[in-house]
Amino acid sequence: MECLEQDENAGHWNERAVTGRRITRIDETGTAAGEDLVVREAALTVNVNDRELATLVCSPVDLKYMAVGFLCAEGILLQRDDLEQITIDEGQGMAWVTTSRDHLGEKVFLKRYITPCCGRARTSFYFAADAMLCKPVTASLRVTLAVVLSLAEQLQERSQLFRRTGGVHGAALARGEEILIFREDIGRHNTLDKIYGQCFLEEIPRDDKIIVFSGRVSSEILLKVAKMGVPVLISRSAPTDLALQLADDLGVTVAGFVRGSRCNIYAHPERIEV
Amino acid sequence: MECLEQDENAGHWNERAVTGRRITRIDETGTAAGEDLVVREAALTVNVNDRELATLVCSPVDLKYMAVGFLCAEGILLQRDDLEQITIDEGQGMAWVTTSRDHLGEKVFLKRYITPCCGRARTSFYFAADAMLCKPVTASLRVTLAVVLSLAEQLQERSQLFRRTGGVHGAALARGEEILIFREDIGRHNTLDKIYGQCFLEEIPRDDKIIVFSGRVSSEILLKVAKMGVPVLISRSAPTDLALQLADDLGVTVAGFVRGSRCNIYAHPERIEV
Repeated sequence: MECLEQDENAGHWNERAVTGRRITRIDETGTAAGEDLVVREAALTVNVNDRELATLVCSPVDLKYMAVGFLCAEGILLQRDDLEQITIDEGQGMAWVTTSRDHLGEKVFLKRYITPCCGRARTSFYFAADAMLCKPVTASLRVTLAVVLSLAEQLQERSQLFRRTGGVHGAALARGEEILIFREDIGRHNTLDKIYGQCFLEEIPRDDKIIVFSGRVSSEILLKVAKMGVPVLISRSAPTDLALQLADDLGVTVAGFVRGSRCNIYAHPERIEV
Repeated sequence: MECLEQDENAGHWNERAVTGRRITRIDETGTAAGEDLVVREAALTVNVNDRELATLVCSPVDLKYMAVGFLCAEGILLQRDDLEQITIDEGQGMAWVTTSRDHLGEKVFLKRYITPCCGRARTSFYFAADAMLCKPVTASLRVTLAVVLSLAEQLQERSQLFRRTGGVHGAALARGEEILIFREDIGRHNTLDKIYGQCFLEEIPRDDKIIVFSGRVSSEILLKVAKMGVPVLISRSAPTDLALQLADDLGVTVAGFVRGSRCNIYAHPERIEV
């Protein structure tokens, strides 16, 4: 957060994700005008079959993955050949998507803000539309504790943009100890949508993969992981009770507070070999 | 995160915000079954004039403030006598609101997900509906650097629930060095909505107040502060470029990365006396 140049140890991030800003910097030595690096926040309006669906706010990189991942998470793209064409206009912040089937009823448009609640017979609730998209994850993947700890460590090491700006979250898709995809975004959920989009476009199987996540695990995050069919979610941060109920029911292993040599296993511990 | 009992130094939080969970805890000494305290996440469905408007996900405390603050931020409650009645059913997670004027057209229902973008003549964009609700903040409040640093420190000290669970964000409304309202919630935005709701219900003026915030300052956070009419926003974390553009235009002073004796002034430094 000190200067605009990337130093040798700073690693790499997409230059479009950041911009310079004149600021007043104050510390023990006094007050000085300076330049800071701040993360960019931009709109991406997603149009499906010539109909405007939603405007997302995200880091303006990997916009194709962003749009596709969002449509996957919303249940509008279900299988690879549902997607006929996608065009991104970066300058205008527009995505134009053509699908082979038209899943867009009014209910999809309204789903997120007028969410019907059901399942209140349980101690809490599910989002009806979301739960319908989720099949329980049954993959028999096993992961050693050493891999869990290593992945959390690797995520932190790779989060260069966070260290530089403090303004983003990070997520990774891993197979065993190897991180295959890493995304940073100003939006916690966007990091997962961008991974989802890339997996969908490149037809990357998820039942043998692990998601490593920098942020807190809320129900929405858990649902995204379950929809992707990823059996193990590792976070450096805390889960909510509702996320853990969903994890119980949807078969997702949740390891939280993974830091150093410590972690808590909150759901489906059978996949973790200690 | 170690046990369910509040120890003497842990301070106080609302018991309804948390719940116990059986977990597997792993550290250097081995693996043990244990109990952890996790934050609760619950739905609040807001009905306005017998019409379902939105389902929010939040910490299940201060639900009246949550519902009212959300409706203020959405521009549905503009002045105190717009609100005729509010009833909260905590068990069912329902808020029933009666307003004296009915601002609810289809555009309000669709606004957030089918957000029209305008103002692209600028380097970025505004959300049309949101920008319409914002008048520039012109309050002539002055705040010393010592107060800025003290408030950031106080926010951290008061964040007991965060220290215990790692699962919430915190925000405070302050006058000078004194914190008047403090709220924690699993949702970053909810902390501000709950403060907004309380200010609205208790008719607390905001033009002489300061918001202190634990999280990153995105455009949505900045817009909430501007709508509240609060002239100074202090965060321990980072702002985005779009939030700062809005701050420039809407007259909000933004101090970020306020930690120890350091801070960055990102917008409208004239209110900070160094």
